[in-house]
Amino acid sequence: MQRKYIAKIFVTLRPSVLDPAGVAVQSGLRQLGYDNVEQVRIGKYIELTLICPNETKARNSLNKMCEQMLANTVIENYRFELIEVESQTGVF
Amino acid sequence: MQRKYIAKIFVTLRPSVLDPAGVAVQSGLRQLGYDNVEQVRIGKYIELTLICPNETKARNSLNKMCEQMLANTVIENYRFELIEVESQTGVF
Repeated sequence: MQRKYIAKIFVTLRPSVLDPAGVAVQSGLRQLGYDNVEQVRIGKYIELTLICPNETKARNSLNKMCEQMLANTVIENYRFELIEVESQTGVF
Repeated sequence: MQRKYIAKIFVTLRPSVLDPAGVAVQSGLRQLGYDNVEQVRIGKYIELTLICPNETKARNSLNKMCEQMLANTVIENYRFELIEVESQTGVF
């Protein structure tokens, strides 16, 4: 039986890595009058649909995808949330 | 009294808008052997620290920031989560 999962993946710069885009956004917000914003960090948010037999395999697969392609682990961290949406060939 | 909030902002393309970057990532994953990935959508994830007197003002402020600058509401949706981290001049 195959299950369908939605994965929400967050790829963020490691805290020690400078984020010039974040600094630019903060400066832009300041110019618009938002001087109460202290720090801005910009990352990626990836949503994908995954077909897998179970959650463990889905998590393993996602970890590999992130390591191989979605995140640059030298400068980025990643984490993800997994939501099961429906069974493909369920008994229900 | 000022409070400190961390806002986690998700900016995603509206469902009706094509996402060529997402299609490219899906194709890349397929070439790496992940043929169980059905759809990939790529968005932005912005984390910022905000100083505000209360949560309502923080939410209003964030909505305005997103409308004015962080999201292009013609083609993008946004949502955010707000977490209070500490009081600036608290009584604790």
